[in-house]
Amino acid sequence: MSCEFESLEKSLESHLPEAELAEVKRILFGKETVKLDLPAFALEAASERDFELKAFKFDASQEQLRPPRRTRVGLVQHKIVLPTDAPVLDQINAIHSRVGEIVEVAAMCGVNIICFQETWTMPFAFCTREKEPWTEFAESAEEGNTTRFCQELAKKYNMVIISPILEREELHGKLWNAAVVISNSGNVLGKSRKNHIPRVGDFNESTYYMEGDTGHTVFQTQFGRIAVNICYGRHHPLNWFMFSMNGAEIIFNPSATVGGLSEPMWSIEARNAAIANHCFTCAINRVGTETFKNEFTSGDGRKAHHEFGHFYGSSYVAAPDGSRTPGLSRTRDGLLVVEMDLNLNRQVSDKWSFKMTGRYAEYAEKLTKAVGQDFKPKIIKE
Amino acid sequence: MSCEFESLEKSLESHLPEAELAEVKRILFGKETVKLDLPAFALEAASERDFELKAFKFDASQEQLRPPRRTRVGLVQHKIVLPTDAPVLDQINAIHSRVGEIVEVAAMCGVNIICFQETWTMPFAFCTREKEPWTEFAESAEEGNTTRFCQELAKKYNMVIISPILEREELHGKLWNAAVVISNSGNVLGKSRKNHIPRVGDFNESTYYMEGDTGHTVFQTQFGRIAVNICYGRHHPLNWFMFSMNGAEIIFNPSATVGGLSEPMWSIEARNAAIANHCFTCAINRVGTETFKNEFTSGDGRKAHHEFGHFYGSSYVAAPDGSRTPGLSRTRDGLLVVEMDLNLNRQVSDKWSFKMTGRYAEYAEKLTKAVGQDFKPKIIKE
Repeated sequence: MSCEFESLEKSLESHLPEAELAEVKRILFGKETVKLDLPAFALEAASERDFELKAFKFDASQEQLRPPRRTRVGLVQHKIVLPTDAPVLDQINAIHSRVGEIVEVAAMCGVNIICFQETWTMPFAFCTREKEPWTEFAESAEEGNTTRFCQELAKKYNMVIISPILEREELHGKLWNAAVVISNSGNVLGKSRKNHIPRVGDFNESTYYMEGDTGHTVFQTQFGRIAVNICYGRHHPLNWFMFSMNGAEIIFNPSATVGGLSEPMWSIEARNAAIANHCFTCAINRVGTETFKNEFTSGDGRKAHHEFGHFYGSSYVAAPDGSRTPGLSRTRDGLLVVEMDLNLNRQVSDKWSFKMTGRYAEYAEKLTKAVGQDFKPKIIKE
Repeated sequence: MSCEFESLEKSLESHLPEAELAEVKRILFGKETVKLDLPAFALEAASERDFELKAFKFDASQEQLRPPRRTRVGLVQHKIVLPTDAPVLDQINAIHSRVGEIVEVAAMCGVNIICFQETWTMPFAFCTREKEPWTEFAESAEEGNTTRFCQELAKKYNMVIISPILEREELHGKLWNAAVVISNSGNVLGKSRKNHIPRVGDFNESTYYMEGDTGHTVFQTQFGRIAVNICYGRHHPLNWFMFSMNGAEIIFNPSATVGGLSEPMWSIEARNAAIANHCFTCAINRVGTETFKNEFTSGDGRKAHHEFGHFYGSSYVAAPDGSRTPGLSRTRDGLLVVEMDLNLNRQVSDKWSFKMTGRYAEYAEKLTKAVGQDFKPKIIKE
């Protein structure tokens, strides 16, 4: 939508004098992330294919006993391609094709691990509360067409692919919101199901699927230990924390969220998680406005309507030292390429020591008590 | 220091065109906080006394069955008054006098609960690692001069006072970093000791006192249920969380932190805590540069020096809906007055439902396992 504000960073850069801009950016974003040079043919391809391509890197200090552990991640945000009333398979195939051409550019940029947005093969149709045709977008995590499509890409480009889909577990008659993790060998490493399901705004996902049962699995890949915290799970600090306790070095947060609801929280939560857990976090949001054939209401007194609202993109990466990259556009398809030296995690941990000063054993006891039926809050009255 | 950048908000307001400013502020700060009108004599007094006075309010929706529960909090940030080598008692008295005149203005503004910065009666001298004379600033939480001073103010102005001091527990030969909570009746309600002690930068506090033993006490006052999470505790999401589990509606975070270390994290952590826990948080930082007679080193290769660095002020209040007030200045003494309708907490909780979607019982189990000696992280390899 042309009426949507394109990006916070662009606005600041257009209007602030240079010296102030540097100070504003330091306060807002931390140590400036260095721009990463990309091959000209990659930039050209992105331009031809009409998507934004930005690239940054986070360096770490040189150590004496460990070589750098540099890895490149790619974050993809995209609009749906066909109208939401096009045939299901056409919609899926059109998105496969669009994302396929973005992944090809990611490969030109040397990306090692790429992550797509939440339920990337479909419109975020849960606002409608209609089961048909939306549940037809659900696929097997292990054997679905989308997984096969990603396996081909993974092998072709030697890339780990995180593919968040609507999962159908045929055997048990269940639907899940899940991310399939595909190794650069092409094998399915496993999956991570969405741990926390929203009951807010038009996010009527709780009428489609339940809270995930895969816990806080971490995947050891050739390029680092990764985990996937899907969408609404970013509001829950304990969720990020348990991924970290299981050893995650990079936590991806594929999301779908709209401007009216969550935008002021967007830049806070994944970044807080990177700081609190001494790891990298990658926040990915879909982009654009999706229109549905049948009108629906939003439980807020408004008249029935056909649009969910504007998915504001703004995908970004946050580092353990409190810094972050600029965000992708609020309005355009985009690929954010970020090189990170994973050694930074331990360096920041050695400096700030949250894991050692965290008193976790005491919190385990306190939390166990607090969830008991007979818990009495510790409140002092005069 | 005149060379210090005064404030992020001022810079944005000076340079951005109006329409863009509104959008930038919405994305950065959430729903715009309304300015609160203050009596002219309060504004004049603040001006005469040379400190910044800002006031905002957070409204909540009108409910049918509950009246609004409006309370006004005051956040005080101030420089030390005398040089750090002046006699101890002179230094304390000068700060009492300075803060006393700020509290008087807070009373003119109708403040109900006021909170001072961490160890507000002294320079933040822990960078020196000298025990003398700094431990002489320590006082009894229940019977010290500073507590008596605050009790007088509390009675006089019908104000709850949170007074973070260096506490001496004479009987057990211990020092603590603690906040004394004084009821508007003048009685000491209790105290909250700092739960997490830093080992970072020049924050050599771990050589002066240990981790607090008062847990996550919440104080029921006439103006709301409050808790105090001192300084470095803001980096620990579990710390905020347990205060919330004990019923805190407003969590104060009196701090002392410098620009080179933590500034990009400052706007993230307390705000994330307000969002994640459906409560208000009040982040207070001291301001100015403190110089010490004897030089000290910082463990970072720099030459021995006399200054800790610039405490950047920037105190602010964050609301459960993701919005926040602008910050106080980075360079001046200041009083931030914020009126909040505490009904907003439950309204946001009913909307976003983090407490219900949080799966806390499962996290209690997971965390208990994770802190065990035999914990095996859940890592999947190919």
